[in-house]
Amino acid sequence: MAPCLSFFFLFLFAFSAIPANSLPTFFPGAAYQSLIKQAKISKPKLPFKTHYFPQTLDHFTFQPKSSKLFYQKYLINSDYWRKGAPIFVYTGNEGNIEWFAANTGFMLDIAPKFKALLVFIEHRFYGKSMPFGKDSYQSAKTLGYLNSQQALADFAVLITSLKQNLSSEASPVVVFGGSYGGMLAAWFRLKYPHIAIGALASSAPILQFDKLIPWSSFYDAVSQDFKDVSLNCYQVIKGSWAELEAMSTQKQALAELSKTFRTCKSLHSTASARDWLWTAFVYTAMVNYPTKADFMKPLPAYPVQKMCKIIDKIPSGATKLSRAFAAASLYYNYSRSENCFKIEHEVDGHGLHGWGWQESMFPPSGFDYEEFAEQCQMKYGVSPRPHWITTEFGGERIQKVLKRFGSNIIFSNGMQDPWSRGGIIALVTEKGAHHVDFRSATKKDPKWLIQLRKQEVEIIQKWLNEYYADL
Amino acid sequence: MAPCLSFFFLFLFAFSAIPANSLPTFFPGAAYQSLIKQAKISKPKLPFKTHYFPQTLDHFTFQPKSSKLFYQKYLINSDYWRKGAPIFVYTGNEGNIEWFAANTGFMLDIAPKFKALLVFIEHRFYGKSMPFGKDSYQSAKTLGYLNSQQALADFAVLITSLKQNLSSEASPVVVFGGSYGGMLAAWFRLKYPHIAIGALASSAPILQFDKLIPWSSFYDAVSQDFKDVSLNCYQVIKGSWAELEAMSTQKQALAELSKTFRTCKSLHSTASARDWLWTAFVYTAMVNYPTKADFMKPLPAYPVQKMCKIIDKIPSGATKLSRAFAAASLYYNYSRSENCFKIEHEVDGHGLHGWGWQESMFPPSGFDYEEFAEQCQMKYGVSPRPHWITTEFGGERIQKVLKRFGSNIIFSNGMQDPWSRGGIIALVTEKGAHHVDFRSATKKDPKWLIQLRKQEVEIIQKWLNEYYADL
Repeated sequence: MAPCLSFFFLFLFAFSAIPANSLPTFFPGAAYQSLIKQAKISKPKLPFKTHYFPQTLDHFTFQPKSSKLFYQKYLINSDYWRKGAPIFVYTGNEGNIEWFAANTGFMLDIAPKFKALLVFIEHRFYGKSMPFGKDSYQSAKTLGYLNSQQALADFAVLITSLKQNLSSEASPVVVFGGSYGGMLAAWFRLKYPHIAIGALASSAPILQFDKLIPWSSFYDAVSQDFKDVSLNCYQVIKGSWAELEAMSTQKQALAELSKTFRTCKSLHSTASARDWLWTAFVYTAMVNYPTKADFMKPLPAYPVQKMCKIIDKIPSGATKLSRAFAAASLYYNYSRSENCFKIEHEVDGHGLHGWGWQESMFPPSGFDYEEFAEQCQMKYGVSPRPHWITTEFGGERIQKVLKRFGSNIIFSNGMQDPWSRGGIIALVTEKGAHHVDFRSATKKDPKWLIQLRKQEVEIIQKWLNEYYADL
Repeated sequence: MAPCLSFFFLFLFAFSAIPANSLPTFFPGAAYQSLIKQAKISKPKLPFKTHYFPQTLDHFTFQPKSSKLFYQKYLINSDYWRKGAPIFVYTGNEGNIEWFAANTGFMLDIAPKFKALLVFIEHRFYGKSMPFGKDSYQSAKTLGYLNSQQALADFAVLITSLKQNLSSEASPVVVFGGSYGGMLAAWFRLKYPHIAIGALASSAPILQFDKLIPWSSFYDAVSQDFKDVSLNCYQVIKGSWAELEAMSTQKQALAELSKTFRTCKSLHSTASARDWLWTAFVYTAMVNYPTKADFMKPLPAYPVQKMCKIIDKIPSGATKLSRAFAAASLYYNYSRSENCFKIEHEVDGHGLHGWGWQESMFPPSGFDYEEFAEQCQMKYGVSPRPHWITTEFGGERIQKVLKRFGSNIIFSNGMQDPWSRGGIIALVTEKGAHHVDFRSATKKDPKWLIQLRKQEVEIIQKWLNEYYADL
């Protein structure tokens, strides 16, 4: 989606347009350190070989410059593959492809059973797959080629060519994706059913567009995750917002805030502190995994519980803002690597540069659309097309449409994940977080997660059986 | 399809690359006039109102210029419509939209039964729907936006907007199309199942791409149509080709040929006479309708039979070429409007200017691909993408793919129509020609045609019943 709306980074980019009263919010703290245990998450070498595919810049126009080639990165694991066996493809989303490969251990786990070839394809304009090198983000002239329709066509062309090169045209392809990658996987099955026999779309909020579902349901879901753990925790976070707002009118407030928030440099406004807190709570709700993990940041098992534990243990004399800060610090410093916080210039290491462009193209309703469109026009010289995604991919009555048309798409959603409200519910787990099923199996996995993955494997096996029977 | 391959005009543009020995061919004649009856085909005023929709130039990139608007023409008939009732949309193909509206009387015939709204949408770059006005065909910079993916997105955006404006979002949409328009209708149902609940694709050769079926099967089917009527007729046409070839090495041959062919101006080569004959026989096979009609040209009922009657009646002393010419004259002058033939500059009146570009993008295999690609590069500065259409829309094992995925697509094919060899056979009529089912019903319609249309109406009714039951 260029067309996209928000996702991970919606809040960062569009934050100013979110009505303040719909946010759960917070305040700084103090004695959190005793609660945070030293965490070391090792990053094992990924068992993939890196390749580059000469990809067409623009699949949908035929101008002389449309056929310009760029090199699209993809990763291959053929350790378990037997020719003719299935090809499992991860449809890369917004970031370096290694990031998704490292966080989708599920595919590696099941490859031996299916003797599957694994392919992780990087999304254009992320990681190393830059159509215009370091100038890729220069302006709308280059960024104009960054959108989900082109990305889907990239996958189609690359997969088709790869199968030919491997002389494995008859190998069935199943696509996998989480979050925006899950939307891509589901859309790929819908638009290219002749290439992929099925899709496993984990935490794919394909209804989070246009006016299909109220945007507030996302925020409601974040709040619910905290409320479920502790009502006090929820109330502290909710109340901290007003405390932060009040500070912005006080003299010397910023100096005090900088100290409380342990910032590396003095803050210039309260807005960055607000974003910083907001990010911590939203992302933690998303990745509220049952085991220790490092997707957005290193975090312990059930991090929402841990955050609430921090908040609940601090005596009620402390301000709500200070307690919220203590909880948020879990997100930013679980690994104890930070001596201070770069609150105004938090740098992301996952290669997400293009997300501002993608999400900015189709802002959600509930935002101030007019203002958003104006900013888009000013920044990029283009206007958003708010109805394009639903026109291109559907949404309205999608369950009925799929009943009569689509097939072989698993939508898995964890109800802990705020994005689940925009997803089509097929395999639901009450306790699941953002594409938790895609993570590598561990000895500590709860029963419901083991069961979910088992169901997914069985469904994929059924698709493959049908495919081979049809041959 | 920009991506397209040939269709109506394949032969005209790519003629030089067709292997000569695969062609049925012919020679001029004399006493044909007594056989040609005066024919007057009246052109009734079409019962449609003309509208223009502000359409986006490029749906798949988001550059500043992508959002340029152009005015896309569409025709509406609401005489029979009752709000909430179905919307029947003709997905326009290569020509003025009135041409298709005039030759798809079937939709008008069935509108009262369904209380349907009728919409005929013109294809971008044809008729009045010119994105760059009179500069639309200037070069690949403008023509680059002419292709079937953009055309499908145009239909999606226009239909969605129209339904909103009519406050009829719940009205089910069925798309109709013949020939390339039939491919568009079938592809539209595949790519936009959330917008169209079904498609009736008449004479849509969606397998005529890449190497899915041998290209020679098209020519074989043309030959078969003539052979079925008269073996002598077939042999005369086949033999006339060599006679024409022989003339090209003779002095004074061109003057003689010009006389025999009643040309308005002297011929400069035998090639144009070859094209002229070839066009007449191929198109007549395509439109071998059971009743008098005026699709490509005014023609009597069963024109292939009439042509063979001309050939068979001329004494065998006449050259084969002269007899083939007499038969071809039926195609060019059934209405007796011509005093001489503009063989080197035959002008088409159906607004087909863009077809050279579209078909040239994806030449069929069987042609000399290398040569074709070179010409494309020279003429437009772009190279064809021979595998794009099959990558984007499928083809390989399409029946199996559709069995497990697609639904609600009727492919109707007349076996008289040479394009039927590339179509998916669902409703087949032995005697049917190129989208004959789409023509207005007449009192002279044969039983098989009445039956075919009845079947189509019943299937559409079933789709609508399902849709309303789902609501």
